[in-house]
Amino acid sequence: MVKSKVYVKAREFVENPKEEDFKVIEQNVDENLEDEEILTEAVCISPDPYIRTYPTPVGSEFRAFQVAKVLKSKNKKYPTGSIVLQEIGWRTISKSKGDAVWYRCDDLPPNEPVSVATGALGMPGITAHYGLTAFCKPKPGETVMVTTAVGAVGIIVGQIAKLMGCRVIGSCGSDEKVRFAKSLGYDAVFNYKTQDWKTALKEAAPNGIDCYFDNVGGKMSSAVIEQMNPGGRIGVCGCISSSNSKDIPQAPVMQVHFVYKYLMMAGINIFTLEDKKPTYDILNQWIKDAS
Amino acid sequence: MVKSKVYVKAREFVENPKEEDFKVIEQNVDENLEDEEILTEAVCISPDPYIRTYPTPVGSEFRAFQVAKVLKSKNKKYPTGSIVLQEIGWRTISKSKGDAVWYRCDDLPPNEPVSVATGALGMPGITAHYGLTAFCKPKPGETVMVTTAVGAVGIIVGQIAKLMGCRVIGSCGSDEKVRFAKSLGYDAVFNYKTQDWKTALKEAAPNGIDCYFDNVGGKMSSAVIEQMNPGGRIGVCGCISSSNSKDIPQAPVMQVHFVYKYLMMAGINIFTLEDKKPTYDILNQWIKDAS
Repeated sequence: MVKSKVYVKAREFVENPKEEDFKVIEQNVDENLEDEEILTEAVCISPDPYIRTYPTPVGSEFRAFQVAKVLKSKNKKYPTGSIVLQEIGWRTISKSKGDAVWYRCDDLPPNEPVSVATGALGMPGITAHYGLTAFCKPKPGETVMVTTAVGAVGIIVGQIAKLMGCRVIGSCGSDEKVRFAKSLGYDAVFNYKTQDWKTALKEAAPNGIDCYFDNVGGKMSSAVIEQMNPGGRIGVCGCISSSNSKDIPQAPVMQVHFVYKYLMMAGINIFTLEDKKPTYDILNQWIKDAS
Repeated sequence: MVKSKVYVKAREFVENPKEEDFKVIEQNVDENLEDEEILTEAVCISPDPYIRTYPTPVGSEFRAFQVAKVLKSKNKKYPTGSIVLQEIGWRTISKSKGDAVWYRCDDLPPNEPVSVATGALGMPGITAHYGLTAFCKPKPGETVMVTTAVGAVGIIVGQIAKLMGCRVIGSCGSDEKVRFAKSLGYDAVFNYKTQDWKTALKEAAPNGIDCYFDNVGGKMSSAVIEQMNPGGRIGVCGCISSSNSKDIPQAPVMQVHFVYKYLMMAGINIFTLEDKKPTYDILNQWIKDAS
């Protein structure tokens, strides 16, 4: 038996989660493996915003991604010593048949910390690339708007949209984030907490908005959609504006813009993308080329 | 010179349009034609809801469809005596190069009034077929929800969805309309003005909703979208709930459902469908087969 440390929910969240809402317990894991099984140890664990939105009963583990090293293996796809990205929770030691593994990531860029495999080369990076290229489909010269411009997903969306030759604009919640976004190449960014954001949005998009990568929903999204050009495309990746509400908040009705501007909006759910490895390979090469 | 009677806007609408908001003026039309020109006389004029949503300054004509007979022609496509559907306004006599013509409709079903060419065989029918088949794409056995179930477009959507083997449910605003919808084959219909419509909606769709043909937007649409199944498709054809409001009303935020159920929503704008004649031919054949 080996001990695994596991985060579980200690009590229900009230507004933002607090440290006391979590506790660490120990579980025994039998290290004897059956066919196909692997025993892994976490190297790096990710606290992504999406975790919050899945119902987790008190006493249960959280759904979450981790980079892990394979300690023992009876699975040819994941031999001992290989590195994998897997969605297996906030826990140190895990045993599985590899069903939770997204892909091996033994070939990470040498100049980056291993945590890049939970960020730009993990679920957020894959989501960004998939959402932008499969749903928003921006063309060179078009204007792409990204909410939570330097969030885990938004930060990748903005940089890919720049690589695709777009004007890229974004919103975020602090002046520090605004400066960071600009340093990454955003053409215009505003702080929605301190600026008159409806005016800032219009000024940032003098030619209207063609693609909208939506991480927030709600009032901001209604305003962005009002500014969109005919034929505009919206990828909805998150709805952070409703995260802390018990009741669903209200926002201006947007359907009228859909009719007259024949807009298209689709939910980006990364779990509908079957093979994530090709996207990982593209992003990995970009990072290696840049370092 | 021939006289044409033309409806113009006499004053701005306040809430629902009233008779005094319109006036009829006379215009002189020169019946001498240049190459490609046609002179037409309206046979049947349509007052569609979409007219309301296009800005019409006081003193101007309204955008509208009419079935018209070609009185004189220097255009081979539309010879004298042919019947056309054209979007040329509420007016009796018109001269044009045929740019406003959607298609000839000389072959209308013999047992139907000519007004069928402004309804089931006109813009509403083409919109219904295009929106349902190109955007909602229902499969046999799926549940299709139609708001304004017996409106000019909805009434065609519901019947086509039944032909496609779907469970078809709808909402409308009077008990008479409910009875009429049921007589056309709707599996469940409710009166949103008198019934507890959130409960009625759940009862009408025990297996959830797969396709939503949206003519209303607003609160009803947020509730429908909440009831949709993963992979659901929404065609937005209208937003009547905002028609009489100066300010855009609010409705519950819907983006969160898009992410977790990877929904797709697109504005149905019939003006993006280049060739409408093939759709007309399908609908025309259905009506002839049924009569």
